Amino acid sequence: MLLRKVSVLACSHLRVISPKWSLLNQRPSHSLPPLTAGAYNVKRGDFAQITDNDLTHFQSIIGKDHVITDHNDLEMYNMDWMRSVRGQSKLLLKPKTTNEVSQIVKHCNERKLAVCPQGGNTGLVGGSVPVFDEIVLSTQRMNNIILIDPVSGVLVCQAGCILEAANNQLSKHSLMAPLDLGAKGSCHLGGNISTNAGGLRLLRYGSLRGSVLGVEAVLPSGEILDCLSELRKDNTGYDLKQLLIGSEGTLGIVTALAIQCVQKPLSTNLAFLGVESFSNVLSLLRGARRDLGEILSAVEFMDQDCMRLVTTHLDCSNPISSHPFYMLIETSGSNTGHDEEKLSAFLDKIMSSGLAVDGTLATDVGKLQSIWALRERIAEATLREGYNYKYDVSLPTEHMYTMVEESRKRLQDVCLSVFGYGHVGDGNLHLNMTSEKFDPKVLSMIEPFVYEWVSKYKGSVSAEHGMGFKKRQYMGFTKSKSAITLMHRIKELLDPNGIFNPYKTLPDP
Amino acid sequence: MLLRKVSVLACSHLRVISPKWSLLNQRPSHSLPPLTAGAYNVKRGDFAQITDNDLTHFQSIIGKDHVITDHNDLEMYNMDWMRSVRGQSKLLLKPKTTNEVSQIVKHCNERKLAVCPQGGNTGLVGGSVPVFDEIVLSTQRMNNIILIDPVSGVLVCQAGCILEAANNQLSKHSLMAPLDLGAKGSCHLGGNISTNAGGLRLLRYGSLRGSVLGVEAVLPSGEILDCLSELRKDNTGYDLKQLLIGSEGTLGIVTALAIQCVQKPLSTNLAFLGVESFSNVLSLLRGARRDLGEILSAVEFMDQDCMRLVTTHLDCSNPISSHPFYMLIETSGSNTGHDEEKLSAFLDKIMSSGLAVDGTLATDVGKLQSIWALRERIAEATLREGYNYKYDVSLPTEHMYTMVEESRKRLQDVCLSVFGYGHVGDGNLHLNMTSEKFDPKVLSMIEPFVYEWVSKYKGSVSAEHGMGFKKRQYMGFTKSKSAITLMHRIKELLDPNGIFNPYKTLPDP
Repeated sequence: MLLRKVSVLACSHLRVISPKWSLLNQRPSHSLPPLTAGAYNVKRGDFAQITDNDLTHFQSIIGKDHVITDHNDLEMYNMDWMRSVRGQSKLLLKPKTTNEVSQIVKHCNERKLAVCPQGGNTGLVGGSVPVFDEIVLSTQRMNNIILIDPVSGVLVCQAGCILEAANNQLSKHSLMAPLDLGAKGSCHLGGNISTNAGGLRLLRYGSLRGSVLGVEAVLPSGEILDCLSELRKDNTGYDLKQLLIGSEGTLGIVTALAIQCVQKPLSTNLAFLGVESFSNVLSLLRGARRDLGEILSAVEFMDQDCMRLVTTHLDCSNPISSHPFYMLIETSGSNTGHDEEKLSAFLDKIMSSGLAVDGTLATDVGKLQSIWALRERIAEATLREGYNYKYDVSLPTEHMYTMVEESRKRLQDVCLSVFGYGHVGDGNLHLNMTSEKFDPKVLSMIEPFVYEWVSKYKGSVSAEHGMGFKKRQYMGFTKSKSAITLMHRIKELLDPNGIFNPYKTLPDP
Repeated sequence: MLLRKVSVLACSHLRVISPKWSLLNQRPSHSLPPLTAGAYNVKRGDFAQITDNDLTHFQSIIGKDHVITDHNDLEMYNMDWMRSVRGQSKLLLKPKTTNEVSQIVKHCNERKLAVCPQGGNTGLVGGSVPVFDEIVLSTQRMNNIILIDPVSGVLVCQAGCILEAANNQLSKHSLMAPLDLGAKGSCHLGGNISTNAGGLRLLRYGSLRGSVLGVEAVLPSGEILDCLSELRKDNTGYDLKQLLIGSEGTLGIVTALAIQCVQKPLSTNLAFLGVESFSNVLSLLRGARRDLGEILSAVEFMDQDCMRLVTTHLDCSNPISSHPFYMLIETSGSNTGHDEEKLSAFLDKIMSSGLAVDGTLATDVGKLQSIWALRERIAEATLREGYNYKYDVSLPTEHMYTMVEESRKRLQDVCLSVFGYGHVGDGNLHLNMTSEKFDPKVLSMIEPFVYEWVSKYKGSVSAEHGMGFKKRQYMGFTKSKSAITLMHRIKELLDPNGIFNPYKTLPDP
């Protein structure tokens, strides 16, 4: 019962702290970011232009009301919430059914019209925003929950279901989705799958590649690929749905999905710790894995710059004394007494050993919420400081913070701040820099430095955000030439006209 | 400490109870099963024949000792351990390195020589056994452990590492592989990946699609596909390793892998229960999920016919009174006291409610071992009764046992026994029939009946065993036409000459 309250409060709270489009709307229109095509010097693909005949055809499929050409209405679909990319689409289509998507795509393929599929548009790499005049195909109206099976714990729904809305329904059956992320109030499950979203609880519930059971998608030919299995185990041939997971709409548009949900925990505890060094952060991570075992549900870290940002720019306060690092260690389980006993023993041990030098434990709704806000609102606070250079990398944990330190050393004279936070339990660092405004000279000092650093330690240049538009050219820092070549061949096989989400995911050949 | 003992004993025990080749060797050679090609009326593909020049070339790559042409030496590679399929390969190659595999395959592709990749040859659907004269490429000598990272819990090894051998090394770091299956003493990790093996602990640790972090493979062209990432999170492009997982060597030969291992539990408990009905089995499954939550590590069931088989044909005894159904509910956790308390409360509840009518709890080595043997030795006992018709299906749990009952009704006059057991927690039923010897009339009463039944309830005709040779023609009962077509296109893209494991996985177009 306690947790249900937490969850509801946390969600409404998150809606407030992720202003996205409300933030955008407050700004005068002359502050629009430059067009992506110009800013990045992109050449338009050899696609057709939309004609009146096309519009009439689309109207015949989904009705006039859902074929949108008004410039103002299109603005929020042509831009990401961070205002970092801007496209020039002149047409937004809002189908309701898979069959409608199929008919639309079939026409686009015949006509060589490019399509940009869009879910909640909460991505961080420009994957869901058009670059030129691609038709935006939004899954907004495809938001039906098809099935919640309380016995198997399987949720089947359309791609446009919002994660939080799905969770509200799931909680009636004591279930929850196996992923959680800050954007839960806006992101679509179809988009989560297309991005292979990670988030805060991957450490506990694993990647979507394991928990997504089935996917239905429309291929670039317009054909419906039906892999919407609800089975936990199905070893009949190649697992085609994996091609859709994480391919950012470049191989198919996810229209429906089946996902294995998990039992909603009956007990949740959150420890917030002050830590003197990153090596102690890692010792605490190892200790938490060992001592908290199966009840561990999140291990996050943030440095003192993050704390400065959220306490300076937002209405947040640090509940403990100041330290170079802070950690959030969360447990979730089925037995309150057992969980508290395990966590208490762990906290006693780490406080007496000095691995953590200060800390507070949250078990009640309000405190849980305010502590998670310190971590989840960093991205928002960053935007208040100035222009944000954003990196999302995987690294062996022992090198994670060295990268922040070396970046800081290199950039201290040209950046307002250089800081790191993220999912330390998964080796996933969010490295950020801010400067007063965008400065190409600063950027040239950051890139390719950051990517080369990641490559040197065999990390990934995108841990969970994907390649989208902004990162695609850097794939070679993580992936082998043989792998990239094969990706291009698969794209060519499925989308010979290249109409699905062009300028995204794959680097130029 | 206790668990380590259990594990070692269980492993050596399993070596004894899975006789495989020792069993085969006891039989006179005239009892060899018929050749697959003839028995199933298969037409040989348009492949080249091996010449002396080919042999010389292979010897130059891997040395004379590892190019095997002796008929007797080849026998065990030409047959599965159940003696259900038999091929006619005249050449066995045992490379040691990825580079050697690459050179061999490059030559085979140029010469259009067919290749049958083989790991531990423990499969159940004839996936690793040649049908005609395919060259057997064994990963037996590719058994190096490359890395065990005690911090991240990642194991990197060559494809030919035996699961149990890897586990022995992992346990030194308090880690274990995230999968466990009866064949652990023989199966290769590369084979596990190529089959997408499920097993006894999938319920707890999820599918290999989530836990395999990286794969290195040799493609049919001979090119090495390097996707051997060790990162928990990496969203840089299409996840190509998923094409290798579960594709049974038809798209690439897995040569090395990285897998996320899990903390070895400090406490293991196993309840063995007598249950009066399958509906009570399902109630117990739901109750176990709810009350045991995060410590639940296996939920298996077997019916009374299974118990009859293991107690009649093997040196096993039923530790409780006779019942229509039996369940094994295992917990694994980090705190012995907490785990026992949770399990005791659960057992008190289900015994007093009558959901379970009898039961025994194992916490010590010997008892754990003897109870798991009742479940794990069913397959062995079945072979002692006669010919075994073997099905491995996924079904919604509520229909799982109805399928056994309807099969029994249909086949009671022609079969010695019809019985069911399996991973009820994953909706995975092992349906089996026995008759004195193979009888095509019996088979025609079983198939397509079984597949039609599965299809009617939207199940899978292969939950964890794969399609291999024996099940491939039935894929259409589970997969859509659009999916099968796309699989063929992917096969054609990667292996235009069709040299990798022909006659396997995909149905005839």
